[in-house]
Amino acid sequence: MSGWLRVVGLGPGPVNWITPEASAVLAAASDIVGYHAYVSRLSVGTGQNVHGSDNREELQRAQKALELAAGGARVAVVSGGDPGVFAMAAAVFEALEAGPAAWRALDIAVLPGITAMLAAAARLGAPLGNDFCAINLSDNLKSWAVIERRLTLAAQADFVIALYNPASRARRDQIHACFHILRRERSPETLVVFAAAIGRDDEQIQLRRLADADPGLADMRTLVLIGASSTRCIERAGGPPFIYTPRGVGESS
Amino acid sequence: MSGWLRVVGLGPGPVNWITPEASAVLAAASDIVGYHAYVSRLSVGTGQNVHGSDNREELQRAQKALELAAGGARVAVVSGGDPGVFAMAAAVFEALEAGPAAWRALDIAVLPGITAMLAAAARLGAPLGNDFCAINLSDNLKSWAVIERRLTLAAQADFVIALYNPASRARRDQIHACFHILRRERSPETLVVFAAAIGRDDEQIQLRRLADADPGLADMRTLVLIGASSTRCIERAGGPPFIYTPRGVGESS
Repeated sequence: MSGWLRVVGLGPGPVNWITPEASAVLAAASDIVGYHAYVSRLSVGTGQNVHGSDNREELQRAQKALELAAGGARVAVVSGGDPGVFAMAAAVFEALEAGPAAWRALDIAVLPGITAMLAAAARLGAPLGNDFCAINLSDNLKSWAVIERRLTLAAQADFVIALYNPASRARRDQIHACFHILRRERSPETLVVFAAAIGRDDEQIQLRRLADADPGLADMRTLVLIGASSTRCIERAGGPPFIYTPRGVGESS
Repeated sequence: MSGWLRVVGLGPGPVNWITPEASAVLAAASDIVGYHAYVSRLSVGTGQNVHGSDNREELQRAQKALELAAGGARVAVVSGGDPGVFAMAAAVFEALEAGPAAWRALDIAVLPGITAMLAAAARLGAPLGNDFCAINLSDNLKSWAVIERRLTLAAQADFVIALYNPASRARRDQIHACFHILRRERSPETLVVFAAAIGRDDEQIQLRRLADADPGLADMRTLVLIGASSTRCIERAGGPPFIYTPRGVGESS
């Protein structure tokens, strides 16, 4: 069996954030499997088969990719960002575990990529310079009680918090409930950043304090970053302020 | 003033994990500033000035880089991994904030990279497929009380936990104290991974359960990953097991 499966991250947008390793796999693949919006970004080679599917169909897409690889295809499953962070890699392993035993003999690997949190952080300065966490606000596959508990403890731990999938067209309530928790646990002065479409032409960064941050600013293309108590602004005349979290906690550095 | 400063991540090791954006900046720089071990990895061009320094001297290195840029140099400050995650970017902004006001007019940007946690996760499967946090175990710049509190709350939140800088030659106690906390808060069956030198020739991955994991396996080149309660193994005949955290919590997917 000569097939293989690679789970590849395209980063948040621009091609110069795609690693050479990922580009080489995309060029070598016979079949490219992914969400329509991601596969449409790629320049597809002659003879490559493209299998685009809907956003919600991650598990079916993973099964399809495994079937193709089992049949001898060289399959690249594409994700935005890093495929291991709230993206396709976990779905591939869910499908693998539930599927035929023969699939476990396949040549399968995940390739790391630039996840949205790192891209947004780089644009802002260094907000992830101290301990942080990443929480997926979508309650499609986990209960709100789990999310609420994690948010509360993360806020109490004074982590910088990156919120993935804060809202979608159909799902507007979670980010409001989330901010309710954050306002209970954290200072009103806490820095909040809404980072939308980072790396794209319509990139937009909005900086607020928790007291006056409107959760409605978040949509499906937004990563929301909540600063730690030590997260700071450096004002500049020539541009937006830099946001960073010092390496030290509890003393000036 | 034509100088600029870019803070660049080299990823955890192999050149095919360095983004094209970072490579272009390294090629265009007149001056490359970084920890000896990182700058020695680079193929330096004719006429490029290399400023290597010791591991501990992050703030002085950042000041030097800003001085060079203020003098008109095109400066690349290099970090391993992603420069914004427990690396040079925060030190640059600390130096910027404490330095002459004129520095704030400089052309400064951070470029994202592949941080060790993402590289290790990709090698393992998809352990970061659900909510996670990253904690720097070094207490050089923050008190152990802060670290202890964050570990305890992160464990209670059932995050996957990535531990950066778990130990060094001079600092051996923290990882033992950390495991003491984890054993109090989490099941003995919790998966623990010691991922050393990921992406290098001497890469080594050791998988344990919390009950029998020896914290002494961690050294300065190790990233330690603590699974969530839902983190699972998929056994394979032909290789090490895949480790992944399903997207769903509290129900089978």
